[in-house]
Amino acid sequence: MPIASHIRKNMGEGGWIRRMFEVGLVMKAQHGADNVFDLSLGNPVMEPPQEFQQELLRLARQPAAGMHRYMPNAGYPETRQAVAEGLTQETGVAFTRDEIVMTCGAAAALNVILRTILNPGDEVIILSPYFGEYVYYIDNHQGMPVIVPTDAGFQPDLAAIEAAITPRTRALLINSPNNPSGVVYTSQRLAALGDLLRRAQTRHGGQIFLISDEPYRRIIFDGLTYPQALPHYENSIIAYSHAKDLALPGERIGYVAVSPHCADRKELVDGVVFCHRTLGFVNAPALMQHVVRALQGVSVDASQYQRKRDFLCGQLTEMGYSLVKPQGAFYLFPKSPIPDDVAFVEALQEYNVLTVPGRGFGTPGHFRIAYCLEDRVLEGAMPGFARAAERFGL
Amino acid sequence: MPIASHIRKNMGEGGWIRRMFEVGLVMKAQHGADNVFDLSLGNPVMEPPQEFQQELLRLARQPAAGMHRYMPNAGYPETRQAVAEGLTQETGVAFTRDEIVMTCGAAAALNVILRTILNPGDEVIILSPYFGEYVYYIDNHQGMPVIVPTDAGFQPDLAAIEAAITPRTRALLINSPNNPSGVVYTSQRLAALGDLLRRAQTRHGGQIFLISDEPYRRIIFDGLTYPQALPHYENSIIAYSHAKDLALPGERIGYVAVSPHCADRKELVDGVVFCHRTLGFVNAPALMQHVVRALQGVSVDASQYQRKRDFLCGQLTEMGYSLVKPQGAFYLFPKSPIPDDVAFVEALQEYNVLTVPGRGFGTPGHFRIAYCLEDRVLEGAMPGFARAAERFGL
Repeated sequence: MPIASHIRKNMGEGGWIRRMFEVGLVMKAQHGADNVFDLSLGNPVMEPPQEFQQELLRLARQPAAGMHRYMPNAGYPETRQAVAEGLTQETGVAFTRDEIVMTCGAAAALNVILRTILNPGDEVIILSPYFGEYVYYIDNHQGMPVIVPTDAGFQPDLAAIEAAITPRTRALLINSPNNPSGVVYTSQRLAALGDLLRRAQTRHGGQIFLISDEPYRRIIFDGLTYPQALPHYENSIIAYSHAKDLALPGERIGYVAVSPHCADRKELVDGVVFCHRTLGFVNAPALMQHVVRALQGVSVDASQYQRKRDFLCGQLTEMGYSLVKPQGAFYLFPKSPIPDDVAFVEALQEYNVLTVPGRGFGTPGHFRIAYCLEDRVLEGAMPGFARAAERFGL
Repeated sequence: MPIASHIRKNMGEGGWIRRMFEVGLVMKAQHGADNVFDLSLGNPVMEPPQEFQQELLRLARQPAAGMHRYMPNAGYPETRQAVAEGLTQETGVAFTRDEIVMTCGAAAALNVILRTILNPGDEVIILSPYFGEYVYYIDNHQGMPVIVPTDAGFQPDLAAIEAAITPRTRALLINSPNNPSGVVYTSQRLAALGDLLRRAQTRHGGQIFLISDEPYRRIIFDGLTYPQALPHYENSIIAYSHAKDLALPGERIGYVAVSPHCADRKELVDGVVFCHRTLGFVNAPALMQHVVRALQGVSVDASQYQRKRDFLCGQLTEMGYSLVKPQGAFYLFPKSPIPDDVAFVEALQEYNVLTVPGRGFGTPGHFRIAYCLEDRVLEGAMPGFARAAERFGL
């Protein structure tokens, strides 16, 4: 057989989001794209901001010599400088470019961080519901995922996290605003998390990293200021992507930012650069590095997502669905009306509505809606949700 | 300590090319860029072809809706179709887009292939001199590199390869035109290699893959037609990059092509797509996929590299250096005048000439020259080579 046995096993078990995406492609071919309401993939329908288009055009019009060549593996110093300045403003922690490594998006950033820090068998705590790919990322580098459920509001459960920490715990990986719940972890909770990790480090003697996966950091509602994780804990590492804030998920551009207060941070950054190179990323795409350098303050208009959230939360609640109203990202994670979330998602498919079962996020009994879509699609999906609600007695 | 122990070990041992690149940056800051002759990195000084600039400008001028969004992880069907058509022409083997997966360059392609096929402890044969990163790629996915030297002309040594094959052999990884030797493996040798692997498969009962890393396939001299490996062996996989043919190494765009004759090829391709996604590459950069779709027949002018090769081979031979005159890529791999190649490379540094010691390619006693540079730099390095030749009694 051509595939390694552990890969075959992983392929069989998961990939719910992509599986639904592929189902959607088939259904659209069958029923016509306008008659299928595909709420399965976080593929923003918004176009990148005007500033992005202008910057790309400027670079294409006046190509600079060498602009597509290799640069230092960590990325262009100027781009890293711009990122450092932006992060300093956002976090209140003074970053320099020496703490920034440009990467091929957040998925790359996470793989590279894990490759850098994990000895075989090291444990990485993730909080369910979590982005389903995390378990593959951890497995890629011979780590062991340790899954800790969040509380009823999808906030980190501090007591449960504390109980899960062992001498093999190497990192806690968090994601706020969260995919799939959309929930933004509160400052209080993050501050307490920092204290907890600091205590655990003292207890166990090892270094425990807080990895904060923040691709939705700029998609925040209700006038909220993003509650930063990094200032609350020294051994923090941010994984970032411009996929969502600039609406270019296909372009693979993001970064790793290591806290300036991280112990032995130079060695850690060197390791990240080495692993980014040797895992085959080599460097973040040159052209996109040029583009995002000028766009560190720019984001898509999050109020459009807020409006969509309000529409969906209102409609679904009225139909009887139970959900936590989130304050970020572009996902909802309602309770499935029946315990079997896969059966429920399949029922929705009968009404041409595509969502993703909660078990794809380590949380059966829920389902995920991605609403980074045209209003037409969201509105079109409502009758299907209503029929499903009726069918299952909500 | 923040870095996993095996990563720290790998970091300590190698990365000669990048180490020299970084030394070069320091030396240039010290002596002025014009006074340092940096022949260490394969970072083409040529600009991308006119067709590339035009296509990029066209796409930037008329942005299509959704052109920066996610696409299927394997890449845009249209781009894969264009690659399949080009490969069909070049190899004489009928490819369809179903055998093509667009990747973030060849380094990504190789990591993804290895992740897909390797069970822990599987052996991968590489032929020295080899691209030094291969050992990290194999180590990333828990494989074991088995190093087999080439013959005096840097051609595959068939008897030595046959002797190295064991029941744990999972793949043979070749690279022609070769980095660092520039040598193009002959058709006869590749045909015999196919026969050899076929026999070994029968003997051992497992599937052995021939992975052909071909980023320099279009940089060929002396009117040679590129001797394809793939048509000679069913279980072949090509790793390709547009870094060199379109002179855009910073952009990370390439592909995996699985032979249409490969056993269980659908499962293999599905595995490659899965691993490309879960290793964090997700998909090849969208914009570059749009660009290269239209450029499958386009390459930089290889005759410029041929001219540089002729200049260097002539000069160095005259000085007494011993070398194999290569027919592709943009590297030379002369013998070091003294057995200790690191000492020799350090001696060249005293004359402000930067090269890479052969041990970075598994072949001590040689050194690599990258000549994808301006003539001015190559000419400027000649006095340094002459002084070193004199110093070591050539």
